[in-house]
Amino acid sequence: MTDSLDWLANPCPAPSHAAAAAARLRQDQLTKPRGALGRLESLAIRLAALQDSPSPRVDPVQICLFAGDHGVVAEAVSAYPQSVTVAMVRNIAGGGAAISVLARALGAGLEVIDCGTLGDLRDVPGVRCEGVGPGTANLAQGPAMTRGQVAGALGIGRAAAARAAGQGVRLLIGGEMGIGNTTAAAALACALLGLPAADLVGPGTGLDGAGVRHKAQVVARALALHAQGQGDPLVLLERLGGFEIAALVGCYLACGQGRILVLVDGFIATAAALCACRINPGLRDWLLFSHGSAEPGHRALLAALDAEPLLDLGMRLGEGSGAAMALPLVRLACELHNTMATFAEAGVAG
Amino acid sequence: MTDSLDWLANPCPAPSHAAAAAARLRQDQLTKPRGALGRLESLAIRLAALQDSPSPRVDPVQICLFAGDHGVVAEAVSAYPQSVTVAMVRNIAGGGAAISVLARALGAGLEVIDCGTLGDLRDVPGVRCEGVGPGTANLAQGPAMTRGQVAGALGIGRAAAARAAGQGVRLLIGGEMGIGNTTAAAALACALLGLPAADLVGPGTGLDGAGVRHKAQVVARALALHAQGQGDPLVLLERLGGFEIAALVGCYLACGQGRILVLVDGFIATAAALCACRINPGLRDWLLFSHGSAEPGHRALLAALDAEPLLDLGMRLGEGSGAAMALPLVRLACELHNTMATFAEAGVAG
Repeated sequence: MTDSLDWLANPCPAPSHAAAAAARLRQDQLTKPRGALGRLESLAIRLAALQDSPSPRVDPVQICLFAGDHGVVAEAVSAYPQSVTVAMVRNIAGGGAAISVLARALGAGLEVIDCGTLGDLRDVPGVRCEGVGPGTANLAQGPAMTRGQVAGALGIGRAAAARAAGQGVRLLIGGEMGIGNTTAAAALACALLGLPAADLVGPGTGLDGAGVRHKAQVVARALALHAQGQGDPLVLLERLGGFEIAALVGCYLACGQGRILVLVDGFIATAAALCACRINPGLRDWLLFSHGSAEPGHRALLAALDAEPLLDLGMRLGEGSGAAMALPLVRLACELHNTMATFAEAGVAG
Repeated sequence: MTDSLDWLANPCPAPSHAAAAAARLRQDQLTKPRGALGRLESLAIRLAALQDSPSPRVDPVQICLFAGDHGVVAEAVSAYPQSVTVAMVRNIAGGGAAISVLARALGAGLEVIDCGTLGDLRDVPGVRCEGVGPGTANLAQGPAMTRGQVAGALGIGRAAAARAAGQGVRLLIGGEMGIGNTTAAAALACALLGLPAADLVGPGTGLDGAGVRHKAQVVARALALHAQGQGDPLVLLERLGGFEIAALVGCYLACGQGRILVLVDGFIATAAALCACRINPGLRDWLLFSHGSAEPGHRALLAALDAEPLLDLGMRLGEGSGAAMALPLVRLACELHNTMATFAEAGVAG
């Protein structure tokens, strides 16, 4: 391989204790009973600390949608045919998917990046074609990626974060699309956490009970096959991940290193976040967790990251859609912190 | 009394089964796995049924903030002095309170209505002065309101809903401000549900443990004093409620009767909603529940209404602030339902 991966270990800036203390003081002076805004207060204080600013802000917001195909689909692990990946990428870029609707409604940028699907998307307006291969190899039979592919996919994510930084983006949402990617995410997460397949494998886009059991057997087989990679998150990512999952890992790390807040979506995004934090623990500070997915394994991933998501709406769509739903809460937490009157300003007895 | 209260029983239109079925069919055709949007799907279907429309919408949105003072403050049941009610009404109208910030950020109308405080607010721009008395009487020593006052306060809420209807409002948030009103709300809710004071009394704006125990004793005394009113929600409202609580009851009922969706806030608003549903059970269909409050008694009120709120952020501020936080979720649920592409439109295999 030619790509150096040294950048993965670059430090993520630590939150400012002074800014946190100042923000806490301000929250206690705003015209409300102390603590009455609940998690909105701790969220604003945390953002102030991360941004080292008395007035935390999240706009502009960028949504990066990473797409990839998965060789493990040959093991019949998905309720949808593999062709749906490319069809949905077209739909996302065309404005018809959930994340397209949400990006528009929220005034967020949306960039769609083909990290390696089975289609040729060069004719599709709004899709960046940066694929590192025609889908991954079947992780149940061998490594999903080559060392060069995982480095390339990490670099795709890093470049997306760099473009966002160039546009002044303060908060980034990473989305994903890839038929088969709950299988890859579950395998990666099991290996990272040392948990058996049955703990993290779920229905994904809609498997029935028998389908989930079969999927868990496929993941168990993959875990046995790749057992010697345990302990090195980068090796596990290469063997069990996917192009879009590696792109998320690279994007998250580059965001943290570049002072961009990350709003993490559901099961697949959280598996990528866990892998990224294992590579570089300083990233954790920069990750906000948006929602608890209906995909049952999400709970264990959140617990491993000591994360309490803002929303619990029973969503299980991916694409960054759960993170997009939580964006208004983060925006409003900032707005309240920045523009409410203090007791002194309002002449109210505190 | 001269005000007839016959209007309270006017029917609230029932949701359209046909519109619900059509909306469910559409949700299953949108480009996502069936059910993958979780509660956003059931929410959009419910709104389509209520509005009898294929494209549910909630805008324009109106926030009505009802304020009142409480004689029971004489029993030392609040962490804040009574003068804070009027000071906070000034702050809300002046743009500095949480609900002022949220209304502005959300593009919602905000109307501030003095239903009976101890101050003279006629000089304050943006406050409608419709008070039915200088605060309620002490509910621990006698009825909080006269029959004429409760009728007047119900009428204040009804008139606010009528103004909203005249502006084409589709969704209304009722907020409240009134030092002492968690005591009144807890007393009213205990009487409606047949529960002891200790089950529903909590710290409100910030009592300590001893303060909560004293507050529960005051509520227990009030419940014993007014025991003969049990069974009639209107009598209980008169004896144990408050001007702003009665205004919320009237406003909610007039909204349901007039096809305006209601997004219910926290503990006090939910106590008013429970009272309103006991008066006219058909209202329940029109109530959406926004958040679970940190005020511990809220859980029992939600359970009694079979309500699962959208958010759980540990908020306990009132003013309608929790409902305002949930508004973006309701808006986005509509946007997704109305503007996502179907599998056929997008050429995706369903």
